[in-house]
Amino acid sequence: MRATLMYGAGDVRVEDVPDPKIQQPTDALVRVLRSCVCGSDLWPYASMPPTEQGERMGHEFLGVVEDIGSDVSGLKRGDLVVAPFVWSDSTCDFCREGLHTSCRHGGLWARDGIDGGQGEAVRVPQAQGTLVKLPVAEDSALLPSLLTLSDVFCTGHHCAVTAGVDPRTTVTVIGDGAVGLSAVLAAKRLGAMGVPPVERSRDWGRIVLMGRHKDRTELGRDFGATDVVAERDEEGIERVRELTRGDGTHTVLECVGTLPALRMSLGVVRPGGTVSRVGAPQYGEIPLGFTEFMNNITLTGGVAPARAYIDELLPDVLEGRIEPGRVFDRTVGLGDIPDGYRAMADRAALKVLVQP
Amino acid sequence: MRATLMYGAGDVRVEDVPDPKIQQPTDALVRVLRSCVCGSDLWPYASMPPTEQGERMGHEFLGVVEDIGSDVSGLKRGDLVVAPFVWSDSTCDFCREGLHTSCRHGGLWARDGIDGGQGEAVRVPQAQGTLVKLPVAEDSALLPSLLTLSDVFCTGHHCAVTAGVDPRTTVTVIGDGAVGLSAVLAAKRLGAMGVPPVERSRDWGRIVLMGRHKDRTELGRDFGATDVVAERDEEGIERVRELTRGDGTHTVLECVGTLPALRMSLGVVRPGGTVSRVGAPQYGEIPLGFTEFMNNITLTGGVAPARAYIDELLPDVLEGRIEPGRVFDRTVGLGDIPDGYRAMADRAALKVLVQP
Repeated sequence: MRATLMYGAGDVRVEDVPDPKIQQPTDALVRVLRSCVCGSDLWPYASMPPTEQGERMGHEFLGVVEDIGSDVSGLKRGDLVVAPFVWSDSTCDFCREGLHTSCRHGGLWARDGIDGGQGEAVRVPQAQGTLVKLPVAEDSALLPSLLTLSDVFCTGHHCAVTAGVDPRTTVTVIGDGAVGLSAVLAAKRLGAMGVPPVERSRDWGRIVLMGRHKDRTELGRDFGATDVVAERDEEGIERVRELTRGDGTHTVLECVGTLPALRMSLGVVRPGGTVSRVGAPQYGEIPLGFTEFMNNITLTGGVAPARAYIDELLPDVLEGRIEPGRVFDRTVGLGDIPDGYRAMADRAALKVLVQP
Repeated sequence: MRATLMYGAGDVRVEDVPDPKIQQPTDALVRVLRSCVCGSDLWPYASMPPTEQGERMGHEFLGVVEDIGSDVSGLKRGDLVVAPFVWSDSTCDFCREGLHTSCRHGGLWARDGIDGGQGEAVRVPQAQGTLVKLPVAEDSALLPSLLTLSDVFCTGHHCAVTAGVDPRTTVTVIGDGAVGLSAVLAAKRLGAMGVPPVERSRDWGRIVLMGRHKDRTELGRDFGATDVVAERDEEGIERVRELTRGDGTHTVLECVGTLPALRMSLGVVRPGGTVSRVGAPQYGEIPLGFTEFMNNITLTGGVAPARAYIDELLPDVLEGRIEPGRVFDRTVGLGDIPDGYRAMADRAALKVLVQP
């Protein structure tokens, strides 16, 4: 089959690889209907040292079950399924606590002999614990939004959940990439949607989006942002404080992963508030010293256990209450994936959908 | 009156200072019955540059109301009261949220013209919001335990609360100082006390105390520690992991404030777990990078809003269910406070009670 490999920074190729087959009785074989390029794929795209053998790519996909191992129940050939971006057994203690990313028998796609999502098919380990059935047809218009349950919308949701967004919190979202916009939508869903009109004067439900790409922040407004701050660093912090009577917001959703973004987060969080980070950290240390101690600031978040959230979020997508798939603004075929990477790296595209 | 001043590292003196008087209608004047020396007083005792004028000391005290301003209600002369270590109005939005340490009209003792607790009397600003009446007599044997509500036990409690200790969590407490031992007692009160026997095999309710002073860790066992680990750094981390099947504990209560203690905390926390810090941080940055991100580790805690907790904890002290005052192992008169500092700095005393 054809699949995507990265050979080094800027060097993405689509090549023939061995067809996946069932290897374990807990496997399933999924033909990929849709996959996509993740913001986190751009980190190696910018800096990966050249390699001889290349690395398989992609960790977000939905598709059709083509074959199943003998130990897999609850799935059959022809089922349309979505895969979260970490595979897991869904039965170990971590999974039962909702932390599927720490599953005792799980792992990452495109590593250690496991296929990546940016290809024609995937062998899915721990298929029964990993895959979630989608009650739609192969030509459903919902496929883009359903695909976001694999990672990007669940990641924004994880950020909002761990930050503690609820109808009584104010929110700042740092970053207008696909994760940041997803976090806006998730915050709106968890919080501002529930604010009774009489309470709006208290700023509850305010969602400030920090980002400077106008087309993206416009989508952010559609998703629920009440304010957009284009300024960055000290100037940006000052603007958010002006919007919040000098206090900052109860919750800050850090969706970038860089130290400047984290510094902005700590600059706009209200005393007693929480910064949640879901951008893969490009730093090793965090400036959380005496000031944050005196202000009782919490830092939380991390890699999103998407599997834990799909059951809750799926009905809202199926019934059209939310449309997270609007983050996709370009679609490419499998062979054009290198162009998709380039477009995202150049910020010509927000998030690229792949239709093999 | 006589009060304690620090003039530099190792230089504590008891001197005559002006008698406090009511200055604002929201003030009260309290004659101090008991105060104490805090572990956090030892940081300036170790490193304060010499000063000409000295700095007033002490932020933990209980005493008797001697006079009240015209705007103070709910208090009268002769009431026995305890003061939390931050004064606050208890009416602003932060106070109503339980974050009295960020009160919009509050502040610290022994700063900016406010008396310290280590003296004969204190002018209490925002008296109605700050002071809590204690239904005991001046000679009550409960005074030491009641005094801990001013800071040290509430600080341990804040650590356990923000870490999320409950009957289903395992706990590591870092540090066998008075705050660490208070955190053990608080964790026992919130957690292990509620573990049904049938669940004990799951490790719920396990409280590991990391400390190497045997007399202190013995008190820790009395307070509820199920295990004591005397080793430190990598060796200590290894020991805690051995005790928890390699996973670490759900919650870690960091009661020291140094970077090595924080590193140990991050080394023994279970994926999905929380490190809460209440030791005043002697560092500016925290190593919370990719590993902690992948493990969804939360860092929380901060300066404890003691006022928020006193109402809840007071009945347990009054009715003898907990005896946090056992952390006091030496009592000195006001004139002997310099000896008290020295004893704590030399670790000859765990925590020194002052009886003016």
